[in-house]
Amino acid sequence: MNESELRQLLAAVGRGEIAPESAAVRVLDALRAAPFEDLGFARVDHHRAVRLGFPEVVFGQAKTPAQVAAIAARIAARGDSLLITRTTAEVHAAVASVVGEATWHETARIVSRPGATPPPPGHGVILVASAGTSDLPVAEEAAVTAEMMGNTVDRLYDVGVAGLHRLLGERARLAQARVLIVVAGMEGALPSVVGGLVGVPVVAVPSSVGYGANFHGLSALLGMLNTCAPGVAVVNIDNGFGAATMASRINHL
Amino acid sequence: MNESELRQLLAAVGRGEIAPESAAVRVLDALRAAPFEDLGFARVDHHRAVRLGFPEVVFGQAKTPAQVAAIAARIAARGDSLLITRTTAEVHAAVASVVGEATWHETARIVSRPGATPPPPGHGVILVASAGTSDLPVAEEAAVTAEMMGNTVDRLYDVGVAGLHRLLGERARLAQARVLIVVAGMEGALPSVVGGLVGVPVVAVPSSVGYGANFHGLSALLGMLNTCAPGVAVVNIDNGFGAATMASRINHL
Amino acid sequence: MNESELRQLLAAVGRGEIAPESAAVRVLDALRAAPFEDLGFARVDHHRAVRLGFPEVVFGQAKTPAQVAAIAARIAARGDSLLITRTTAEVHAAVASVVGEATWHETARIVSRPGATPPPPGHGVILVASAGTSDLPVAEEAAVTAEMMGNTVDRLYDVGVAGLHRLLGERARLAQARVLIVVAGMEGALPSVVGGLVGVPVVAVPSSVGYGANFHGLSALLGMLNTCAPGVAVVNIDNGFGAATMASRINHL
Amino acid sequence: MNESELRQLLAAVGRGEIAPESAAVRVLDALRAAPFEDLGFARVDHHRAVRLGFPEVVFGQAKTPAQVAAIAARIAARGDSLLITRTTAEVHAAVASVVGEATWHETARIVSRPGATPPPPGHGVILVASAGTSDLPVAEEAAVTAEMMGNTVDRLYDVGVAGLHRLLGERARLAQARVLIVVAGMEGALPSVVGGLVGVPVVAVPSSVGYGANFHGLSALLGMLNTCAPGVAVVNIDNGFGAATMASRINHL
Amino acid sequence: MNESELRQLLAAVGRGEIAPESAAVRVLDALRAAPFEDLGFARVDHHRAVRLGFPEVVFGQAKTPAQVAAIAARIAARGDSLLITRTTAEVHAAVASVVGEATWHETARIVSRPGATPPPPGHGVILVASAGTSDLPVAEEAAVTAEMMGNTVDRLYDVGVAGLHRLLGERARLAQARVLIVVAGMEGALPSVVGGLVGVPVVAVPSSVGYGANFHGLSALLGMLNTCAPGVAVVNIDNGFGAATMASRINHL
Amino acid sequence: MNESELRQLLAAVGRGEIAPESAAVRVLDALRAAPFEDLGFARVDHHRAVRLGFPEVVFGQAKTPAQVAAIAARIAARGDSLLITRTTAEVHAAVASVVGEATWHETARIVSRPGATPPPPGHGVILVASAGTSDLPVAEEAAVTAEMMGNTVDRLYDVGVAGLHRLLGERARLAQARVLIVVAGMEGALPSVVGGLVGVPVVAVPSSVGYGANFHGLSALLGMLNTCAPGVAVVNIDNGFGAATMASRINHL
Amino acid sequence: MNESELRQLLAAVGRGEIAPESAAVRVLDALRAAPFEDLGFARVDHHRAVRLGFPEVVFGQAKTPAQVAAIAARIAARGDSLLITRTTAEVHAAVASVVGEATWHETARIVSRPGATPPPPGHGVILVASAGTSDLPVAEEAAVTAEMMGNTVDRLYDVGVAGLHRLLGERARLAQARVLIVVAGMEGALPSVVGGLVGVPVVAVPSSVGYGANFHGLSALLGMLNTCAPGVAVVNIDNGFGAATMASRINHL
Amino acid sequence: MNESELRQLLAAVGRGEIAPESAAVRVLDALRAAPFEDLGFARVDHHRAVRLGFPEVVFGQAKTPAQVAAIAARIAARGDSLLITRTTAEVHAAVASVVGEATWHETARIVSRPGATPPPPGHGVILVASAGTSDLPVAEEAAVTAEMMGNTVDRLYDVGVAGLHRLLGERARLAQARVLIVVAGMEGALPSVVGGLVGVPVVAVPSSVGYGANFHGLSALLGMLNTCAPGVAVVNIDNGFGAATMASRINHL
Repeated sequence: MNESELRQLLAAVGRGEIAPESAAVRVLDALRAAPFEDLGFARVDHHRAVRLGFPEVVFGQAKTPAQVAAIAARIAARGDSLLITRTTAEVHAAVASVVGEATWHETARIVSRPGATPPPPGHGVILVASAGTSDLPVAEEAAVTAEMMGNTVDRLYDVGVAGLHRLLGERARLAQARVLIVVAGMEGALPSVVGGLVGVPVVAVPSSVGYGANFHGLSALLGMLNTCAPGVAVVNIDNGFGAATMASRINHL
Repeated sequence: MNESELRQLLAAVGRGEIAPESAAVRVLDALRAAPFEDLGFARVDHHRAVRLGFPEVVFGQAKTPAQVAAIAARIAARGDSLLITRTTAEVHAAVASVVGEATWHETARIVSRPGATPPPPGHGVILVASAGTSDLPVAEEAAVTAEMMGNTVDRLYDVGVAGLHRLLGERARLAQARVLIVVAGMEGALPSVVGGLVGVPVVAVPSSVGYGANFHGLSALLGMLNTCAPGVAVVNIDNGFGAATMASRINHL
Repeated sequence: MNESELRQLLAAVGRGEIAPESAAVRVLDALRAAPFEDLGFARVDHHRAVRLGFPEVVFGQAKTPAQVAAIAARIAARGDSLLITRTTAEVHAAVASVVGEATWHETARIVSRPGATPPPPGHGVILVASAGTSDLPVAEEAAVTAEMMGNTVDRLYDVGVAGLHRLLGERARLAQARVLIVVAGMEGALPSVVGGLVGVPVVAVPSSVGYGANFHGLSALLGMLNTCAPGVAVVNIDNGFGAATMASRINHL
Repeated sequence: MNESELRQLLAAVGRGEIAPESAAVRVLDALRAAPFEDLGFARVDHHRAVRLGFPEVVFGQAKTPAQVAAIAARIAARGDSLLITRTTAEVHAAVASVVGEATWHETARIVSRPGATPPPPGHGVILVASAGTSDLPVAEEAAVTAEMMGNTVDRLYDVGVAGLHRLLGERARLAQARVLIVVAGMEGALPSVVGGLVGVPVVAVPSSVGYGANFHGLSALLGMLNTCAPGVAVVNIDNGFGAATMASRINHL
Repeated sequence: MNESELRQLLAAVGRGEIAPESAAVRVLDALRAAPFEDLGFARVDHHRAVRLGFPEVVFGQAKTPAQVAAIAARIAARGDSLLITRTTAEVHAAVASVVGEATWHETARIVSRPGATPPPPGHGVILVASAGTSDLPVAEEAAVTAEMMGNTVDRLYDVGVAGLHRLLGERARLAQARVLIVVAGMEGALPSVVGGLVGVPVVAVPSSVGYGANFHGLSALLGMLNTCAPGVAVVNIDNGFGAATMASRINHL
Repeated sequence: MNESELRQLLAAVGRGEIAPESAAVRVLDALRAAPFEDLGFARVDHHRAVRLGFPEVVFGQAKTPAQVAAIAARIAARGDSLLITRTTAEVHAAVASVVGEATWHETARIVSRPGATPPPPGHGVILVASAGTSDLPVAEEAAVTAEMMGNTVDRLYDVGVAGLHRLLGERARLAQARVLIVVAGMEGALPSVVGGLVGVPVVAVPSSVGYGANFHGLSALLGMLNTCAPGVAVVNIDNGFGAATMASRINHL
Repeated sequence: MNESELRQLLAAVGRGEIAPESAAVRVLDALRAAPFEDLGFARVDHHRAVRLGFPEVVFGQAKTPAQVAAIAARIAARGDSLLITRTTAEVHAAVASVVGEATWHETARIVSRPGATPPPPGHGVILVASAGTSDLPVAEEAAVTAEMMGNTVDRLYDVGVAGLHRLLGERARLAQARVLIVVAGMEGALPSVVGGLVGVPVVAVPSSVGYGANFHGLSALLGMLNTCAPGVAVVNIDNGFGAATMASRINHL
Repeated sequence: MNESELRQLLAAVGRGEIAPESAAVRVLDALRAAPFEDLGFARVDHHRAVRLGFPEVVFGQAKTPAQVAAIAARIAARGDSLLITRTTAEVHAAVASVVGEATWHETARIVSRPGATPPPPGHGVILVASAGTSDLPVAEEAAVTAEMMGNTVDRLYDVGVAGLHRLLGERARLAQARVLIVVAGMEGALPSVVGGLVGVPVVAVPSSVGYGANFHGLSALLGMLNTCAPGVAVVNIDNGFGAATMASRINHL
């Protein structure tokens, strides 16, 4: 119930068309309205698309296939886009059995299914760059998520700083993107170099690729947070999904 | 031997009814009395119910099924409530084979068996809230433990701060609880928001749900320890059991 | 505007006693009502006493004396209790010059001033125990805060576990308290021992007393979080204030 | 030398108007051209405005006043905007003595001086929110930097999650911004709540406000990196400047 | 009251020489007897010499001069040895003014004063070795403490592993000691080398000498804990006092 | 070649009984003499028993069964005591097949085989205490190692501080030991309490028992390093072997 | 296109032998020339041998066998040396099936295949020392890599500091090497001792051998970074490959 | 006494020219010879120049001016080069007063004084590069140390990766160096880029320049240890001295 609806309701009460008690119930109902469905173990946030521009995405880790399938069924039932991250082929099967068709992105570890209406398209290209081949799962999680959210994605993989000419040779592609997602493990230096080459926003994703003093991605994370380049912000280690939501918000402005 | 028993004993000695040496032996015995049973590899603390209000609970992790079953047998033999945490279906089977019936709580990873007499009931409701569906094992460990200790438990799951209306819509249930247990992983922000909404004690439980810079629950733990909300105290990562013992002590005051 | 006020208002509209538009304005006003005062650099939360049982407390660290004094003036103007933590004698002077009298608790580093009406009294005694003399600033922050919130406080200082008889000799005082606040630095073992002796809630406060592998209180914090005793929850390092708010909430149930 | 200049040069060689050797020198010179000035201890990157949209900003920390003044003189001499961060009143004096007028932003710890031509204006409003009053130095560093870069800035301070109504009451201002910069210390929960309320990009800045297990901002940093809200990316602890460069790039798309 | 005293008391009750109630009071008194003095802010543990072989030592850090002087006065009044560690010349003055003479060990940062009777002598020599000259404050804290506890001390300083011949040349002195205290900062390798050369117990003390990835002594601490040499145990960073108490206990066996 | 042998050799050269060149060869040989056997991948240190009082012990972790068996064969061939730690039943089989009989200590994860001559006996009893049943593997590693080194061992298990009476009831056994090894996980408080009860050396062993903020034994390690009790030194997490070598060196003084 | 080629081209244009536009295309082509092959998921850096002295080495971890085989095929097709680190027998099979023969180094976890022309030989010997037998996988990774890069390698294993004579007896071999690679886990003290014995460069490799407070190699890493010996530099934990590239660069000067 | 001297001595004994006992004394003396001077608090290692190629360098931190001056006097008395690092102007004065002239390098925080004979010259140029102006103290410590050790040094400052053209424009100077020392703070990416451009050894020095998640240089340190570039090894944070000793050893091969 928005402001004008409230005004109309009260005018109707004033005109005697609606009983006061009945109006009170409607006002209270609106205040109490819960734009989510309670499954007991989960509360599916159906209001999210209105509020944030994209329906709730299911974080697959540490949920049972049955739990994910139940949530997916409710999202699909409303015709919303379905996106499940950090999941498995087993979950894909469980979901497909309840929602019909669904796509399994193996490298990205994502299950997806388009909604009834496509999301509004982004204004430009989101370029996803990775430092190495081992970063592909994270880069693909970002790329698939961004595509699901209505963005055009350009992939530029294996352009790490130890062979700088591979990156410098692609300056044109960098320049044509509206937002950059840059994935790197080990020392995580690629966003610093990229952030110094172009003037668009750079979303940096540390990957956990490495060993030893990498400490599961800590080295890349700290490197990116301490970048000397301007225009770089960072998401969690291996968080391709988070980078894509940030980039998509920027690309939809 | 308490103070009045000591007085009576000495009076009897004074009256010549009890020989001094025999009284000395009894005083010394009482001082040496070991209210525990020594199994060699374990000393079952049978005195704990008297001292702390609930019998010794068995920490299942890193004990063999045989060790747990032996301890459980001694507790059951005294008619005490049996509660085994962080355990497995295999241990459940081993325990059941020596104590007869016992319940296996799969999500909570708990084996329980009521004692001969029920614990004294708590005064109000303990509400267990969780930020997400993935936090359920920890939330259930807290809920089952609290129930075993004589408390009424209200469960409010998947009300994380990214969809605030799911929580705000349940303010009434929050307000009706006497103590809150709030479980959250990732950034662990839920107890801060809850602690600012109600005036009862909040026991915060960081869960290890997350990845990357979550560092196995460290992010949620630090977030909760640094809460800007008053009336919040924290237990170990994933420690649903510890939260329940704290909440139960509060609820029994 | 609560539910019955809303019902009465709408009935009056129904009776034609209040114009619909005027009622609309009142409903919207109530929804928009901001129970805080905006000072530009701060928003004083005057609603907090109603919501949480005690007015907003000022966290003195990293605020200028002028900022603290301005906030204090607004709180005092409403007749609310004034409590400023982690502050200095210099701030005390600045505050006193705008609110008239105010007390400077040197060891606790607190400035306080009672409100127009005293807070409701707690039901029992809060005992504040400390492991060593060096923990006094933290213990006193807890004790002074608890007293300001209407609690009776018993102080039991320097009863660390290396001389256990000092603690065991005071078991009676421990037993008489309704809540315990236990402050300890170094290895932070005192709450574990206390939590095994009594059955009431224990709020543990790690202090930063120590050096070397103490890492500014980390050793005590981890020790307390990993306590093997039931009924213990932990607040931030040196957070006497937070322990007192938790204990006071418990003591007011 | 761009592509068309190269084509014209070679055509002129083909027409015999320019000697081959002289053309070779010009091509080689262009390749070697260094768009920076070498002061020995510093290389001022005059090319940065062309490449990244804003001239080089001086990081004041750990540089002597004389070094900063020398660098500032070279930037001012070219009519570029001058921005010096993490600096002191002493440096301000040294800079002013060589470049004439310059503004000292005390809370933000910034020295600034407009360039000969104003930067291109951003498309919308950048809202800078802070959780507490103690976060002001970081929030102001972000706000002043964003203004210097041509953006309109809206300031919303002291809206931390422990008094949620202060934030919820300002949802309209949040909704009107094109980009949000959200500064918070302690548990750093504010960006999670904000990211769940609006659909625009959120740049989160952990501040070092806090103590104990805050570990100089680590708790807020980890909290923000692990946010469960979509559309949030993070910069270094206390890095108001970095947040502003990211937000400004977004706002200039 | 020991066992034979208890027996005699009860026999006297049996003989009617002592009234039962009066005996009860004496037994209860003995149980309650507090072998410490309560100064309010401190409980001086006068029983410690009997229990542990040396009176309570005062940890000077974070105590005010007045507090330390008050504690010192009570210890001196009983004729016990006085030892104050981690203290200052200012505290020395305050203590001297209440106990008369006291020695100030500048390098060791210790105030000491012999008790009425000397401690029992250790059986052999405690050798204190240090890797570098910068480790002297820690090494001297160990040496002075050990001497105060009745041990003969041999000092062997600046024998770090980068110049191995300096150590190998002193193998004879190493061989003559009954216990070794080995202090080293930086990589803390000295105890590993020493532990492989001799067969007596080695108490290793990491010092905080170093910088950078030394992390205030963490590198030396971890190095010593992970020693590949047998017969080495470790105390806290810079804890010369703790090393000396361990070594002295060994030397008095 | 010792000093007197050198003198005799040179005298023989002086007497012409031995040719100078032949004497030179013998001196050089002695200097080069390698009291170890080189297996290529390992250098078995046969000199260790002479130097340190016990033969080289084999650290089983990260060695292949074949490697361990080859080393064991060389040690057994000399009639030395064989002790292999952190090993498996599979390695036991491999070793037994080359050295004949060998004992497999399952809980302690040790393979042992007595040498031709027993080690010299220690002077007193080494008491091994553990806080919980889950600490048994570490406690048994210490106990078995100490026994192999000639010590009498007393085992006192499951006496953690949450049920203090279990420990206080055994004060007599504590008092009769010459050295204590105290194993504890979680908060690691047991050595602090024990160190305050008795005056003999306490070797503390943090175990990795726990979860969450235990960080694989870090909490217990830091707790023990920061103990407020005198006479305690610490070995690596789970290092029962190291504790036993320290205790045995003490017990053989 | 190098400088003289550019000069010749322009001269030809001047002489009318080459059309200006055609020359422009050739210059632009050369600038754009990408000395790598793009496989989509990987960009094989064929230019690396020219630039850095050795072809691109394949980091096997987190790549699928198919990915590694595809990259290997491209390298082998050019006749370059093939070196794949941190890989498995399964990958070896996949590679061998596409490139024909290839060697599987089991301990080193390396697949190698010589190039068409051998690399230039190093000037001296690279000695690889290890502290223990458990360090062999890392030491062998270093040794095999160094050999593939044209160096003569001397292996000196199991010379840890707890049995110093094993190292001192090999001083001659240390002295004959031109560069030393020193691998050690646990406390990582070996490079400190070695760096104090000889005057050539020491490349230190911390291994993850150990447990507990070893923290997966952190103790050895910090120990080596804090070495008190001159002439020591460090690579990542377990990074035998990195140590070999550093040593080989030194040995080829 | 080397091998040939021993042979001559024994031959002389054989010829009766030297008495056996007198020869024994000489052999034993040589074995016992202590090539250091014992000042009580320090053992000056005069043998180091012979063994390692450069005399002992004094680590100034945590030593008193008097201690440093005493050590300096002994080094100067032998005509050795004097080099004191991490020191102050006050120490310079104290040293100058005992050794006559000495140079104070303010930025490098070094006191130096040439020895009687210059060190042998290095074979090529050592280039010291820094990412920013704030890194100068560390870079200069490296440069001054390298010069004192006989090397020619080329300084290339402020060439961080955010303005890559500043570095790429100096590829020629990089190519002409025999060893590179690369200093960088913040994300520490410069050595990765440099290591991919040239084929000579790179000694990377993380500096503590930065703030927040820099954690006093940890981010740069981890970044460098995890470099994806070959031929890079790392020294401690801010350890310009250590980098210079490594580079000088390489440059003197």
